[in-house]
Amino acid sequence: MKGPVSEVQIDALRDAGSVHRVDAIAIEEPLEIRLVRAGAAADDNGGPGRPVSITMRTPGHDAELAVGFLHGEGLLREPRDVVDARHCGPSGNVIRITVRADLPLDLDRLNRNFYTTSSCGVCGKASIDAVTASAGIRRVASDLVVRESVLRVMPDTLRAAQAGFAETGGMHAVGLFTPEGELLGIREDVGRHNAMDKLVGAALREGMLPWSPRVLLLSGRASFELIQKAMMAGASVVAAIGAPSTLAVQLAESAGITLVAFLRSGGCNVYCHGARVLPVRGVS
Amino acid sequence: MKGPVSEVQIDALRDAGSVHRVDAIAIEEPLEIRLVRAGAAADDNGGPGRPVSITMRTPGHDAELAVGFLHGEGLLREPRDVVDARHCGPSGNVIRITVRADLPLDLDRLNRNFYTTSSCGVCGKASIDAVTASAGIRRVASDLVVRESVLRVMPDTLRAAQAGFAETGGMHAVGLFTPEGELLGIREDVGRHNAMDKLVGAALREGMLPWSPRVLLLSGRASFELIQKAMMAGASVVAAIGAPSTLAVQLAESAGITLVAFLRSGGCNVYCHGARVLPVRGVS
Repeated sequence: MKGPVSEVQIDALRDAGSVHRVDAIAIEEPLEIRLVRAGAAADDNGGPGRPVSITMRTPGHDAELAVGFLHGEGLLREPRDVVDARHCGPSGNVIRITVRADLPLDLDRLNRNFYTTSSCGVCGKASIDAVTASAGIRRVASDLVVRESVLRVMPDTLRAAQAGFAETGGMHAVGLFTPEGELLGIREDVGRHNAMDKLVGAALREGMLPWSPRVLLLSGRASFELIQKAMMAGASVVAAIGAPSTLAVQLAESAGITLVAFLRSGGCNVYCHGARVLPVRGVS
Repeated sequence: MKGPVSEVQIDALRDAGSVHRVDAIAIEEPLEIRLVRAGAAADDNGGPGRPVSITMRTPGHDAELAVGFLHGEGLLREPRDVVDARHCGPSGNVIRITVRADLPLDLDRLNRNFYTTSSCGVCGKASIDAVTASAGIRRVASDLVVRESVLRVMPDTLRAAQAGFAETGGMHAVGLFTPEGELLGIREDVGRHNAMDKLVGAALREGMLPWSPRVLLLSGRASFELIQKAMMAGASVVAAIGAPSTLAVQLAESAGITLVAFLRSGGCNVYCHGARVLPVRGVS
């Protein structure tokens, strides 16, 4: 079992004097995700399954990452879809997900799709059109309401739980909150899309999707791909400590997701579907 | 010509009162990179070339991005390798690079490679082994020396030049400096790998590679892929304002690149090949 953090020797150059010492840094390694159908010949023969994606990730929660990634691609929907998840090979950097034998899944189409659009979490979707063409826009219906005063406290709550960031200063996090501000789960990774996949994968396996009654908090910026993954998980409120992009706002608007960004203790910006946020003071 | 920034309506919720107003956000749109050989039938017929990658990027400097990306993949080496670079189609989101007719280039191998490893800037390389297998580790030889006191000022210089970040708070930057601290060039993008590709592409087209006499400054973290692109550009000193990852340190070590991270006005950490950095005070 690989950990998320490694130690290296550094020269720390400071005004007060410079020292040679050990420092903790975030581990970044490739993970290949393979997919196989239960009972398929390839599996019976001990075959490794079909490679569908490679991502640079921080080791740990690899099965959740793979399951969450496949959920974001629209391939998995329910806990029973996943029969098995295990590492194969000596590197610890290959994970094979076995899906139920009767899961509707066109592996040839899948690979053609990855061939033309790339399998990456960052660029796997070329545009909102591409999303619509594959899994479609999923519009969330939710009467969730969250107080701005509760939102404002969430960054501190998340930060206190970011063990990897505290050690390395180099990991993103995604947190899952109740609308009352209770932190239900957190995942960290050098790649923010991986942190999201890990959180989605954990929730799927525990039967905790969709996330319509929850608030998602991103430690960094809100990109298109993170909103796309949140949409697939049924999230109704997504808040980011960093900035949003245009495509993130457009997708959130289309999917009925409340998008909050630049969330700080002193305030936040609301980009769309703001009716779910109760402001400290009314908007003039 | 698309710009890098767009305006949206937001609700800005603050203690002092909340207002509905216009805010600037960074544009994020897909860019498809196509490749064609000069004089090839596809080109003569007005064909669109072969798609080799899709990336989510901020519009602007698209030709530089595409050229820089292909340079990072080891496909382009010299200014004369690029015959033409132009957008095709009505979206402004497809760019076609025409390479010289006699450029050694196995497009079938290229596509097979992208097929198995993905074409993304983030995860296009599965490991240091994969890099070695394709383009190989390129070890920089450089007697460049830079003063720590000069390094410490660079983040402020870069920040002052980050026009897109100043407007949106949501764009990464990569800056190219002389060892005396003069900023020679900067590119911004929602994706840090795109910012790097844009800077590399500009330098390649101007015949300004390799970068062995220069210092590269990254506005965020130092990931494996950024060090890989820097290595292909012949950089000898790479500094990051954020944290490095393990694989970034390992590749920098192997490639002979001096890696500095957590660069602040009060100091920095040096991870490998520290002889090129002259500290303010000696290391004890």
